[in-house]
Amino acid sequence: MRTMRAVRVVGYHEDLRLEEVPVPEPEGPFDVVVKIGGAGVCRTDLHILEGQWADRSGVRLPYTIGHENAGWVHATGSAVANVAEGDKVIVHPMITCGLCRACRAGDDVHCEDGRFPGIDTDGGYADYLRTSARSVVKLDGSLEPADVAAFADAGLTAYHAAAKAARRLTPRDRCVVIGAGGLGHIGVQVLKAISPAELIVVDRNPEAVELAKSIGADHGVVADGGQVEAVLDLTGGHGAEAVVDFVGEGGATSEGVRMLRRAGEYHVVGYGENIDVPTIDIISREIGFIGNLVGSYNDLCDLMALAARGAVTLHTRKYALEDFQSAVDDLEAGRVRGRAILVP
Amino acid sequence: MRTMRAVRVVGYHEDLRLEEVPVPEPEGPFDVVVKIGGAGVCRTDLHILEGQWADRSGVRLPYTIGHENAGWVHATGSAVANVAEGDKVIVHPMITCGLCRACRAGDDVHCEDGRFPGIDTDGGYADYLRTSARSVVKLDGSLEPADVAAFADAGLTAYHAAAKAARRLTPRDRCVVIGAGGLGHIGVQVLKAISPAELIVVDRNPEAVELAKSIGADHGVVADGGQVEAVLDLTGGHGAEAVVDFVGEGGATSEGVRMLRRAGEYHVVGYGENIDVPTIDIISREIGFIGNLVGSYNDLCDLMALAARGAVTLHTRKYALEDFQSAVDDLEAGRVRGRAILVP
Amino acid sequence: MRTMRAVRVVGYHEDLRLEEVPVPEPEGPFDVVVKIGGAGVCRTDLHILEGQWADRSGVRLPYTIGHENAGWVHATGSAVANVAEGDKVIVHPMITCGLCRACRAGDDVHCEDGRFPGIDTDGGYADYLRTSARSVVKLDGSLEPADVAAFADAGLTAYHAAAKAARRLTPRDRCVVIGAGGLGHIGVQVLKAISPAELIVVDRNPEAVELAKSIGADHGVVADGGQVEAVLDLTGGHGAEAVVDFVGEGGATSEGVRMLRRAGEYHVVGYGENIDVPTIDIISREIGFIGNLVGSYNDLCDLMALAARGAVTLHTRKYALEDFQSAVDDLEAGRVRGRAILVP
Amino acid sequence: MRTMRAVRVVGYHEDLRLEEVPVPEPEGPFDVVVKIGGAGVCRTDLHILEGQWADRSGVRLPYTIGHENAGWVHATGSAVANVAEGDKVIVHPMITCGLCRACRAGDDVHCEDGRFPGIDTDGGYADYLRTSARSVVKLDGSLEPADVAAFADAGLTAYHAAAKAARRLTPRDRCVVIGAGGLGHIGVQVLKAISPAELIVVDRNPEAVELAKSIGADHGVVADGGQVEAVLDLTGGHGAEAVVDFVGEGGATSEGVRMLRRAGEYHVVGYGENIDVPTIDIISREIGFIGNLVGSYNDLCDLMALAARGAVTLHTRKYALEDFQSAVDDLEAGRVRGRAILVP
Repeated sequence: MRTMRAVRVVGYHEDLRLEEVPVPEPEGPFDVVVKIGGAGVCRTDLHILEGQWADRSGVRLPYTIGHENAGWVHATGSAVANVAEGDKVIVHPMITCGLCRACRAGDDVHCEDGRFPGIDTDGGYADYLRTSARSVVKLDGSLEPADVAAFADAGLTAYHAAAKAARRLTPRDRCVVIGAGGLGHIGVQVLKAISPAELIVVDRNPEAVELAKSIGADHGVVADGGQVEAVLDLTGGHGAEAVVDFVGEGGATSEGVRMLRRAGEYHVVGYGENIDVPTIDIISREIGFIGNLVGSYNDLCDLMALAARGAVTLHTRKYALEDFQSAVDDLEAGRVRGRAILVP
Repeated sequence: MRTMRAVRVVGYHEDLRLEEVPVPEPEGPFDVVVKIGGAGVCRTDLHILEGQWADRSGVRLPYTIGHENAGWVHATGSAVANVAEGDKVIVHPMITCGLCRACRAGDDVHCEDGRFPGIDTDGGYADYLRTSARSVVKLDGSLEPADVAAFADAGLTAYHAAAKAARRLTPRDRCVVIGAGGLGHIGVQVLKAISPAELIVVDRNPEAVELAKSIGADHGVVADGGQVEAVLDLTGGHGAEAVVDFVGEGGATSEGVRMLRRAGEYHVVGYGENIDVPTIDIISREIGFIGNLVGSYNDLCDLMALAARGAVTLHTRKYALEDFQSAVDDLEAGRVRGRAILVP
Repeated sequence: MRTMRAVRVVGYHEDLRLEEVPVPEPEGPFDVVVKIGGAGVCRTDLHILEGQWADRSGVRLPYTIGHENAGWVHATGSAVANVAEGDKVIVHPMITCGLCRACRAGDDVHCEDGRFPGIDTDGGYADYLRTSARSVVKLDGSLEPADVAAFADAGLTAYHAAAKAARRLTPRDRCVVIGAGGLGHIGVQVLKAISPAELIVVDRNPEAVELAKSIGADHGVVADGGQVEAVLDLTGGHGAEAVVDFVGEGGATSEGVRMLRRAGEYHVVGYGENIDVPTIDIISREIGFIGNLVGSYNDLCDLMALAARGAVTLHTRKYALEDFQSAVDDLEAGRVRGRAILVP
Repeated sequence: MRTMRAVRVVGYHEDLRLEEVPVPEPEGPFDVVVKIGGAGVCRTDLHILEGQWADRSGVRLPYTIGHENAGWVHATGSAVANVAEGDKVIVHPMITCGLCRACRAGDDVHCEDGRFPGIDTDGGYADYLRTSARSVVKLDGSLEPADVAAFADAGLTAYHAAAKAARRLTPRDRCVVIGAGGLGHIGVQVLKAISPAELIVVDRNPEAVELAKSIGADHGVVADGGQVEAVLDLTGGHGAEAVVDFVGEGGATSEGVRMLRRAGEYHVVGYGENIDVPTIDIISREIGFIGNLVGSYNDLCDLMALAARGAVTLHTRKYALEDFQSAVDDLEAGRVRGRAILVP
């Protein structure tokens, strides 16, 4: 039996461990095995190690972590017709059934029988990953797996939220983006590419604000206590038609709601704290709160089309697979600008 | 100067007082004076007397209360062309400018310069009311002002929320209606008329639940502590695609959220408590919370079309204008089934 | 090898022939073999025999005809998990790939690699039919295959068109249905169930008009030359917000366009003649023409939900499979009221 | 009585004539008189002189021509509150009632009682124009009336069509723009600004194609007989998701339909010939044809927001008002690049 390297969760509050495990093979007719070209290291991975997802995912230890994956098709099940060995692909983070009502409506992230490699089954911090024909998106020739891997989850979430917000945005509207970090950085680029709205970016970090302005934000606001007033000033005192909140903690939501115009929509992406708003304010201002999960397969295809034309780019810092601990440590310590990527 | 009777707020925490005041006349070219045929007595009127709206409305006392009005056109400004003296009309509760962006988009309740007779200027507990050409909807010959007056605000709010919920409802969807009182009663009828979804009505009052079933609810659930489980049972364990909450207090929202399916929408209509939900639940289930204010002018026209064909009806109890105190007392004591209407 | 009966096209302009052929077996992992409970006889079947579809479908003769099928699951491929042997099912008329962009958006009828049993491969005038896991919809216990088979194509097309029209219909709108035959009969019931618009049915046959009124049409117009004026009279001289044309020949479209209001939508379902309209009329009235093909898998599920609650019913006349020639002759001679169904 | 210069239609097939006429004054409470800063000379003006609009408009001669106007507010009716004397404005081409159902829905171009200055009442080839408070849009300080006047009709039509097409366009979609002349030139810029679709521009004139590429078109196709094949080549053989046809004559529509993908939408803007398509092609490909008239007031505000940020620009050639005949002659002879503007 061929073996490969895999970085595994062996216990909560314990370090990840590099082990030799069997190379996965196609089991069902629609299985696809991908040779990993890049695996993104995500803050969720830290939360997994802290045990925050133990009950929600129900995963049995040990297992291989890593849910942001891209690479090359290595082997396919008997019925796979959409990709062939050697194809360069990015991997949608979910494996979905294709038959439930949600899947049949193109809303595959609400699949009634979905799995999430790296969360509830073996993921991509490894040489190979098993996924499904429904999860692989062929890459444009100009894109390389290690460069785009982080689009598979972080980018896809930002795209999905931005696309939902953009549906109602016209040239006269303003959209506030709270948080110009990993997801927000992508969100700004996507909003710029698909919507004509004026973009106002709010972040505590002045450098992040400047960076956001350099990639398309029309206005930048440093969150130093006066950010609500600053946004109101930029919107004629009315607030913005949409807020996309990539933070969701530390008081972001209560401030964000005050930045919203009457009849505006608040898109929740980042999480941590509660949305806690009097119903009388919700009805008298007729505002809405919209949850956002990771995007669909079609969303990922759309995002890759933007990436292929250079409309959305990512900063990445690459680590050899065996240097996974450095990548995790750097992320935890805030030393990664953009996204850390493991390259086998 | 001709005078008329008007029931006025003379002080907060004081009884309303019947006074003689001048009959209003058209002042601007688009003003319309309506001879009142019926004025609905609403729970908001009780809140006004308690002073809850004093700061929000900024109204100066004394003024005439009453925001649910219908009657006949009595006099018109020089430029009014859409109605003529004698026309039977229901009165949209807001006077709007017609020129701001919201008005130009048909979203007149978010007018940047709107007024609300009965709340922030003289209302309709009187013989005559001054409103605007933009606020009057001609009634079908089969409808009488005193019968439909309560549609002007309570009914219009229920219609607006139901119509927003109905946009995504298909024959396989379930819609939970929380609260089968005044608004909920109308909401059930509207949902039945405009959507193919299965309707599940939840109320503490077994009689209200039975009444709801008699007018179109497919299932009734008495809220006796087991209502969340009952709704889950009726929805295959998944929850409903939409919840329309006409209560918004007493724990309704936290229970209502548990009745919601993944990717479902929670429509907030009733108010009192806070929506207080972890952002992680909002994003992981991808649910939304949608505020609902009173409907637009076009919504009111649509509702009147349903009323004219008998698809939506109201129970009313009529009082002579001078018996306003009985109406208010009966409402406060819970002795009114349906809506109390003052008839001059 | 087990054999079965199958009614086959052996040549164009020749009679169908009953033959013994092998019972189909699952070949791919997602194949499903259905024991036929009812197969609808459709006007398209007559067109096939006339050779009208020979070039379009590219089918090789002989093959088994019949594209409106329902029955019981008889055998399944290795990966089928959504149905099991014995399940009562209706069969979506297309076999789709599940992986192309259209399939991933829920728009499976535009599958880039679809097949159409009964048109371009073996269909359901037989004891058994091979289809796919993606094509079978489980039936509610109250529904029987022979009663619902004709919903699989005729009903699904009517549902799809009605649902598209209904998206913009409010209680004040009027929808004209041209043609109260097979599809129009279902269309009227669907529109009644899912939309609040006033329905005006136009047909040459006074009996069909009366029947349409008995199942929900608000107004009936016999097309005797004055139908355009009659519709204009019923719509205040303006025309209707939507026209759903189930005829599409014999001058229906040029008359139908005159029944349309400014900014209205003309839904093309029936076919035969050309839409031939001056562009100046299209732009000055800002009208639209919307093509309609058969519905998606989710549309079929929605339609079955309506059927299960009795909101949409069909008249059927059943024939034994071996009496296929009588069914075809009766259809051709106009002797079938509702739909002819072959029952093996 | 003060007089002014006005260029008037005195007879069909006769030259326009410069006359002295009274300066218009506000008559109704919502009237606004604008001092003209620029009036666009449009191909429709040539058609008016040829008598093509005589019956449609019902205008009585003589009258002042000119429907693309911008300038400064000169006088206002008693009830006008949204603009004041001296305000720089662009004039929406229609005067609408504000009270009919269409106006109340923001769809003011379908007003049941609208007028069209320059077409059916006195227009803007003059020193002053009477319009309405509902028709004036305040200009950003950076924009000058003579530079933007042609946006009032030509630009607004292009914006409206582009915005309707853009509603469904994603980063993977292709949009074909037929005609890169006056409207098409604006349409390309608008599509670039508000949609992420790939733009393919088709025109007979190689210079116009090059110009279109310089302002945002991703691909240019010279219509030399092989344009349908060229578009199919650029779209993987499938055709484009949307076609926006600014030509509508000379065979453009029959070729344009062949450029359309299954389930695609054909937006009709230019006019002249008939749309003449077999219904079987409309239903089997499930395509749609969408008419486009001039945009709404809100559309004009949106377009002005794009113009204020430089996202949409116009080439203009200015003529003194008294040189109207040169402008008309130059337009007729094809000597105007961009738009001819009369400046009083």
